[in-house]
Amino acid sequence: MNYSPLFTDLYQFTMSYAYFKNNMTDKEAVFHLFFRKNPFGQHYTIAAGLAEVIQYLKQLQFSIEDIRYLHNLKSINNQPLFDEAFLNYLQRLKWTFDIDAVEEGTVVFPHQPLLRIKAPIIQAQLLESALLNIINFSTLIATKSNRVVQAAQGDPVLEFGMRRAQGPNGAMMASRAAYIGGCNGTSNVLAGKKYNIPVKGTHAHSWIMCFENEEQAFEAYAKAMPNNCILLVDTYDTVEGVKKAIKIIDKMKKSNHFDNGTFTGIRLDSGDLKTLSIQARELLDQAGYMDTKIVASNDLNEHKIKNLKASGAKIDIWGVGTQLATAYDQVALGGVYKLAAIRDIGGTWDYKIKLSENKIKISNPGILSIKRYFDNDIPQCDVIYDNNISNEINELKTFQEETVFIKNHWKKANILQPIFRNGQLVYQSPTIHQMREKALKESAVFSSVLEYKSGLEKELFLLKNKMIGDNNK
Amino acid sequence: MNYSPLFTDLYQFTMSYAYFKNNMTDKEAVFHLFFRKNPFGQHYTIAAGLAEVIQYLKQLQFSIEDIRYLHNLKSINNQPLFDEAFLNYLQRLKWTFDIDAVEEGTVVFPHQPLLRIKAPIIQAQLLESALLNIINFSTLIATKSNRVVQAAQGDPVLEFGMRRAQGPNGAMMASRAAYIGGCNGTSNVLAGKKYNIPVKGTHAHSWIMCFENEEQAFEAYAKAMPNNCILLVDTYDTVEGVKKAIKIIDKMKKSNHFDNGTFTGIRLDSGDLKTLSIQARELLDQAGYMDTKIVASNDLNEHKIKNLKASGAKIDIWGVGTQLATAYDQVALGGVYKLAAIRDIGGTWDYKIKLSENKIKISNPGILSIKRYFDNDIPQCDVIYDNNISNEINELKTFQEETVFIKNHWKKANILQPIFRNGQLVYQSPTIHQMREKALKESAVFSSVLEYKSGLEKELFLLKNKMIGDNNK
Repeated sequence: MNYSPLFTDLYQFTMSYAYFKNNMTDKEAVFHLFFRKNPFGQHYTIAAGLAEVIQYLKQLQFSIEDIRYLHNLKSINNQPLFDEAFLNYLQRLKWTFDIDAVEEGTVVFPHQPLLRIKAPIIQAQLLESALLNIINFSTLIATKSNRVVQAAQGDPVLEFGMRRAQGPNGAMMASRAAYIGGCNGTSNVLAGKKYNIPVKGTHAHSWIMCFENEEQAFEAYAKAMPNNCILLVDTYDTVEGVKKAIKIIDKMKKSNHFDNGTFTGIRLDSGDLKTLSIQARELLDQAGYMDTKIVASNDLNEHKIKNLKASGAKIDIWGVGTQLATAYDQVALGGVYKLAAIRDIGGTWDYKIKLSENKIKISNPGILSIKRYFDNDIPQCDVIYDNNISNEINELKTFQEETVFIKNHWKKANILQPIFRNGQLVYQSPTIHQMREKALKESAVFSSVLEYKSGLEKELFLLKNKMIGDNNK
Repeated sequence: MNYSPLFTDLYQFTMSYAYFKNNMTDKEAVFHLFFRKNPFGQHYTIAAGLAEVIQYLKQLQFSIEDIRYLHNLKSINNQPLFDEAFLNYLQRLKWTFDIDAVEEGTVVFPHQPLLRIKAPIIQAQLLESALLNIINFSTLIATKSNRVVQAAQGDPVLEFGMRRAQGPNGAMMASRAAYIGGCNGTSNVLAGKKYNIPVKGTHAHSWIMCFENEEQAFEAYAKAMPNNCILLVDTYDTVEGVKKAIKIIDKMKKSNHFDNGTFTGIRLDSGDLKTLSIQARELLDQAGYMDTKIVASNDLNEHKIKNLKASGAKIDIWGVGTQLATAYDQVALGGVYKLAAIRDIGGTWDYKIKLSENKIKISNPGILSIKRYFDNDIPQCDVIYDNNISNEINELKTFQEETVFIKNHWKKANILQPIFRNGQLVYQSPTIHQMREKALKESAVFSSVLEYKSGLEKELFLLKNKMIGDNNK
């Protein structure tokens, strides 16, 4: 999509205007974008969306039409919403933000900043809504995809969701995030082109219906596509369909009409996938087509895949559509963007927390970073910390208020990476394949750790508690 | 979004290639796009998405890069997926489709074609996935919006969902469809500009947190925005927040610092909205601010709004976000695109149905249109018919197999309108405001009709049953 700085909630502009009118234009602020709960009852989350964030930020400027539109906005009593001085300010705005982010494909946990934005407050506010939109959805789908891929236990998973995805761009971002989360390919050709993702597909029921009978349809398809010959066998009766597919391929091979092709696979798209796949496998094996794959689709999700695998279904490749591209069982991540510090007139940082009766909703103050500690490559804990509060990380208070002492021999890694400095991109993006490898590697480690230790560095934890106490006085 | 003909599932290309290789390039086909079940347990649906469909179809052509991408696609055994002749065909493709569609904002029912596509089969297949994507999502959100608007019983409803929507374009299409469904505005500024929808918004908690205390924050905001002065009062304690807001506005009025402004409203974004809104209303009324509106947000949906209204909550304006923009309780419409007729070599139409053990999944054959009948402006029934099967509509068989006799004095309206003829746009789109008016007017009528009569013209019904019987022989 072609982004515009207008792709934001109106209150970002009304607030910005109010900052401008109150001479707070250059006041610097720090915001963190984070989520409070892993989606799908999962115990970790896969970060995604950074490349789209970069694309959005790189091209962000107010066009003359944007300014004209803002100029024409009226209040309820028909007064101009914004004055000329503010519109001039926007038109001349030079972005000067510093942004740090978690790389795509990284395993992350609740309360960790996926993005840290340090910028004049007007800039930070104007970016909020688009950043949330992009990161929330991509992270949600990458995590869902990773769940589906884990359920498939090494079998290829293909994302087939575009026709039910939430809008064209929803489909594009879903295809991309699903690949990062671990899927092997997509049916979405434009996503294939744009993001360099493998694309897969063969034919639909409509193909079969265009012919007098199933045999004719199979033969015509196999003749045209001898190198991509996956036949959809369930249009009328699945078992009969498999038998006919075998008969046709046998016949074409004998008569040399298959052009050295291979009977790549069959696809099942309805009925009892367990029984039908076992029957189909037997028929194919008996006919000597041991290498012909069985692809299954039809409203699949991670639970159905797990059950089918456990029940002995003979399915080699899984096509997952609606439930993956929309994250059917939890359609939004619920990530938030919270003010954590603001620079006062003297130039020193004033830390901020947002209180709530609900403890999990109290935000973390500071200018935060994340370190992950490893003992012999095995992750031990994640520490959210603020360099200004303590130089050394010795002790972690987890969100369950457990204490973890950091051992000297542990290795550590920075989870947040510098992406923009003073509005300029300073980050070299890895390839999408590297992001996917990272997600598969990290999730293989973290999927076996049910209660990973994640929380605040001790001094930060104490400061936060002090601030909660002060606010409640 | 900039559409490309590659925005489709790969199997549309592999099928098209197989049609091409089998010399079926010019075979004409008719497909219908329809859904099988109203979403959300609703008894009607609001059609939307046509303008986006038109935008997609108007600019659809293969770029050199698109062709190059297809040229480089390989099969599993590393053979080119498509040959040169096919790619040349695509590059020179002139679109010649005839498309009829239901206008946006129209009340529609299951099995009715929202789009009818008559085109050479390759064209019809290549369009399928994008048409489904656009119509499915827009129709889903327009219907959800209409439910929310009905629940609000005339109170304004604002769509606030962009930060949790499924991707940037998901947000844009959701804002547009929500407006068509009956919402009064959106927070999404770009949607406001692009679609001419009213935009609304004031400030967030972060505004309050940037000041020493709530009073300072309110005063600074009211001073900057005297004509759009809606204060968010729940950052610390809602009732105290309301009192402080009143105190500040009173003080500013007395000291002539409010610049003839109006205390437009307060917003509640947490807690027990019923109790807090009643308390806030009392405080505002006592202070003489009878016209100051109470806006509520916080994970609202149609059920919560209905309950709050029934319980006596004093809320004037409803902000609905995630649950509206993602259609939280049913995230996909499940619309399908089914072959209904194909022209044989002699030029006559061969009608097609897709069978299923599940009767609701059996598609309807023919080249279908829809008529809606009215008795004194009150809708009586909707008839799906085919002009080639019967010239006159005398009798309707509903999907519940009831019979309805069409009365002579009933007036009738065509629900499907011609949109494209021979690839050229022939339709003059109404404004988005007219679409919204249509949705509000029609839903006001249909929301009181619990079992509307909808089905097939009798001869079409008989033909379908005969085809089912023939296929089962």
